[in-house]
Amino acid sequence: MDYSLILNDIKPTTDETKEINEVSSRIINFLQVLCDENNINAKVNLVGSVAKNTALKGKSDIDIFIAFPLDTDKLYLKETGLDLAHKCCREFKSVPEHHFASHPYVTADIEGYEVDIVPCYAIEDGSQLKSAVDRTILHTRFVKSNLVEGQEDEVLLLKRFMAMTGTYGSEFKVGGFAGYLCELLIIHYGTFENTLKSAINWQYGHVIDLENYGTSRLFNDPLIVIDPTDMNRNVGAALRINKLSEFIQSARNYIFSDNKKNYFYPIKRNLNKNELIKEFNTRNSDIIAIKFNVPNIPIDTLHPQLKKTTEALERKLNDEEFNVFKADYWSDELFSCVILLEMASSNLNDIKVNVGPKIFFNKACENFVKKYGRENCYIQEDFLVHTQKRDFNNALKLIEHIFTSEHIGLIKVGKNLKKSIINTYEFIDLDEISSEEFLDDFIHPGQHIIR
Amino acid sequence: MDYSLILNDIKPTTDETKEINEVSSRIINFLQVLCDENNINAKVNLVGSVAKNTALKGKSDIDIFIAFPLDTDKLYLKETGLDLAHKCCREFKSVPEHHFASHPYVTADIEGYEVDIVPCYAIEDGSQLKSAVDRTILHTRFVKSNLVEGQEDEVLLLKRFMAMTGTYGSEFKVGGFAGYLCELLIIHYGTFENTLKSAINWQYGHVIDLENYGTSRLFNDPLIVIDPTDMNRNVGAALRINKLSEFIQSARNYIFSDNKKNYFYPIKRNLNKNELIKEFNTRNSDIIAIKFNVPNIPIDTLHPQLKKTTEALERKLNDEEFNVFKADYWSDELFSCVILLEMASSNLNDIKVNVGPKIFFNKACENFVKKYGRENCYIQEDFLVHTQKRDFNNALKLIEHIFTSEHIGLIKVGKNLKKSIINTYEFIDLDEISSEEFLDDFIHPGQHIIR
Repeated sequence: MDYSLILNDIKPTTDETKEINEVSSRIINFLQVLCDENNINAKVNLVGSVAKNTALKGKSDIDIFIAFPLDTDKLYLKETGLDLAHKCCREFKSVPEHHFASHPYVTADIEGYEVDIVPCYAIEDGSQLKSAVDRTILHTRFVKSNLVEGQEDEVLLLKRFMAMTGTYGSEFKVGGFAGYLCELLIIHYGTFENTLKSAINWQYGHVIDLENYGTSRLFNDPLIVIDPTDMNRNVGAALRINKLSEFIQSARNYIFSDNKKNYFYPIKRNLNKNELIKEFNTRNSDIIAIKFNVPNIPIDTLHPQLKKTTEALERKLNDEEFNVFKADYWSDELFSCVILLEMASSNLNDIKVNVGPKIFFNKACENFVKKYGRENCYIQEDFLVHTQKRDFNNALKLIEHIFTSEHIGLIKVGKNLKKSIINTYEFIDLDEISSEEFLDDFIHPGQHIIR
Repeated sequence: MDYSLILNDIKPTTDETKEINEVSSRIINFLQVLCDENNINAKVNLVGSVAKNTALKGKSDIDIFIAFPLDTDKLYLKETGLDLAHKCCREFKSVPEHHFASHPYVTADIEGYEVDIVPCYAIEDGSQLKSAVDRTILHTRFVKSNLVEGQEDEVLLLKRFMAMTGTYGSEFKVGGFAGYLCELLIIHYGTFENTLKSAINWQYGHVIDLENYGTSRLFNDPLIVIDPTDMNRNVGAALRINKLSEFIQSARNYIFSDNKKNYFYPIKRNLNKNELIKEFNTRNSDIIAIKFNVPNIPIDTLHPQLKKTTEALERKLNDEEFNVFKADYWSDELFSCVILLEMASSNLNDIKVNVGPKIFFNKACENFVKKYGRENCYIQEDFLVHTQKRDFNNALKLIEHIFTSEHIGLIKVGKNLKKSIINTYEFIDLDEISSEEFLDDFIHPGQHIIR
C-alpha cells in the first residue's frame, strides 16, 4: 500500500506549516516578552499537535500553555493567565472566549486559527501534578523526543484512519482515541500498519508500558497504555469499550480490504430522508421520537446528560417489560435534542406479577400480605407474589407519566435536562428529525468501520 | 379449635373400619394359606394407610404386599407373585389389572375396594433394598410402632388440610406431600397444630431426622426428612418447592384465620364459564390455547410430559423475546390435552440482533463475518453483532412452525406427545376448554391456600 497519495491529502503543506509556525511564534514571543517585561515568572510553550508536527490538515489549532513555577499562588496564576490572554487578544485584534477545564482558559480566533491560551504549572514529573492540564507540556516533550523522523506521517495515517472510522477523539461525544494515545501507539508499534496488525489480536486489558513502569495492575480498563510521564495514569482510561472494539474490527476489515484507500476518506452515504424512513418502515418497529429544547449549558455537559437520560429511559422501559430494540440520541447543540427509541414491542397486557419475599422470610411475608391482602397472595416457586394491574400497558403513556415534574425522579435524567424535558418535550414523527446523518447511523450502525 | 366435628366428617366410621379390616383379613388369609399349602416361602402383609389406621374416609384402598426372602430369584418372585394375585382374584370373583412400579403388581376391585397385590422382598433395613417397593413394609411397621394413641387423628387432620389446600399427594400431577411424610411430621411434631406452627418458620433445607442419623448433608432439597428406615433417603425428595411453599403459606393463613373449619372442606368456586372468560378479557392478554389428543400412554407419564412440553414452549417463546405472562396445561386424561399460554405480548417488530463473539476472539470474529457478511457486522459494547430479520414476529406463527415434524426438535417436547401434537394440535378459543376448574385455577392461582 502506497500511502504517499493519502498523505498528500491529509498532511498540511509546507506553506501551511510555515504559516502556522510563524503565527504561533509571534503569539508566543508576544506573551513571553509580556511576562519578562512585567516580571511575571512564567515560560510560554507551544504544545499539542502543532508543536509535535502531528496535526492533520485543516485541524491545526494552536495550543499555548503559560507555565508558572510550582509554588505560584493558584489565584495569582488564574488571574495573571487570564490577563495575559486578554492582552494577547487585544494585540492580535481578537475576542477572548472563556472556557473551563480544571482551571479557566481562553480561546480566541487569531488570524484564522483557533488559539487556546492556558495557564498551568511547570511540572517535571506526573507526581507533581496540580491540575490535569499540567501534563500537556510533558506529553508534548515526550512525543517530540520519542517520535522518530518520519513517524509523524504514521501518526497522521492512524489519526485519519480513526477519524474516518469514527473512533478518533477523546471528547465525550465520541469516547474514542485521544491524539496523544495515537502518538504513543506509533512510538510503540513503529508504523500505522504495525499498529493495526497488532490491534486485531489485542485482548481485553492489553498493556502497553513504554517505560516499563510495571504499574498495569492498577487499572482495569479494556486498553491500558501507561502514561510515560505518569506511571499512575492510563492514557486509555477514557476510551470506551465500543470504540476500542470498533477500532479492532476496523483494523481487521482494513487488512482484508481491497479498497484500503477508502478507509482514509469519508464514507459515501445516501441521505435521502424519504428512503431512510422507508427503510425504517420495513423494520416494522413502533418508533418513539422525543424532541425537547437544548438547555442553556456548555456543550461538554450536554452530551453526557443526553447519554445518561437516554440510557435511563431505555432501562426503565425494559424494566417495565417493554422491549427496546435500540435507543440513541442526537442534538444540533443549538436548538433541539432528540431521543429516538425503536421498539421491538411497546404494548403489553394489563396485568403483571408483583414478586414479594421468599416464603422462608416469615416476617417479610406477613408484611406483604398485610399490604396486598392475604387473599390476593399466592406462590410462584418459593416466592410470595401477587397479581396487579399494570400502571401502563403502552410505552408512550409511561413516558408521558415520567416526563412530569412529579415523576421525573423515576429515572436518572441528566440534571440540567430535567426542566427542558418537562416543559418542552413533544413526540415527533421520524421525518421531523432534522439530521439525516443521525437517522442513517441509527439504522446502519456498522457503516463507518468498513469500506 | 374443636376438631371433633371435622373428624366426624373425615374419619371412617367404626362400621367402615370393621368392614375393611374384615375384607383385608379374608384376602390375606387366603393368600397366606395358598403360600403355605404350596410350599411358597412368603409372608403376606397388610400395609399402607389401612394398616396404619391413617386412611381418610372413602379413600380406603387395601395394599397387600407378599414378601419373599431376600435370596429369592427375581423371576420366580415376579411370576409367583402374579400367579398368587390371579388366584386371589379368581377366588374373590374379580378381574386383575396389571401395573408396573419397580416390578409388576396387580390391582383388582374386590368387594368394592381397590386392592393392590404387590410382590416384594422381605427386608429388615433400607440398606438391603432390592426395589423401591420393598420399603413399604418397613414404613408401615415404623409408623404403627411410633404413632401414639390418638395421633392417627392428627394425621387425618393434616392429610385433609393438605388435600383441601392442594398440597397433598406425591403423585407427579401434584408433587405434594406423601402420606408417609405426613405421618412422620405428626410423629415428630406430635399434633396437627404443632406441625403448622412449626412449618411457618421452616427455612430452605429444614431437617427432620427422627433417628438422629446425621445424614442430612447428603441432601440439597427444600425439605429434608430422613427416612427412619433408610438413612440415605430423603422422604421429602419428591416434594416440589412450590408445594412446600404453598403448605407454609397455607399454615400461616390458617393460623390467622377466623374460618379455620373451612380449611378442611373444598373451596367454594364460581365455575360459570362466561364469567371466567369475562374475567380473562379484563386482563387484555393475547390468549394462545392449544388442544391435542391424549396419546395412548399411562397417565403417570402423561403429566410429566405435558409439564415438560409446556415449560419448553414457554421458554422458547420467551427466548424469542415474546413475553409469556403465564403458562399451564390440563388434560381430561382420556381424550384431549390443552396448553394455555397467556401472553403479556405476542407481537414483535421484524428485526433482531444476532449477537456474535466478543471482539477479542479474532478467529471467532472472522468466522462470524464470513457467515453473515463483513459489511453487515457491527459492534455492540465488545460484541460483534449483526441485525437480521426475525423469523417470526408473532407467537402463533412461531408455534405453528415448531409443531411440525421438521421443527419439533427446536423444543424439548415430551417424547410420547410429539406425534400427537404434530398430527392433532389446533388453536382453540378459551370457551372451547372444557374444564372450568382449570380456567378458574389459572386466573385464581391462590384460591386453594386460603379460606
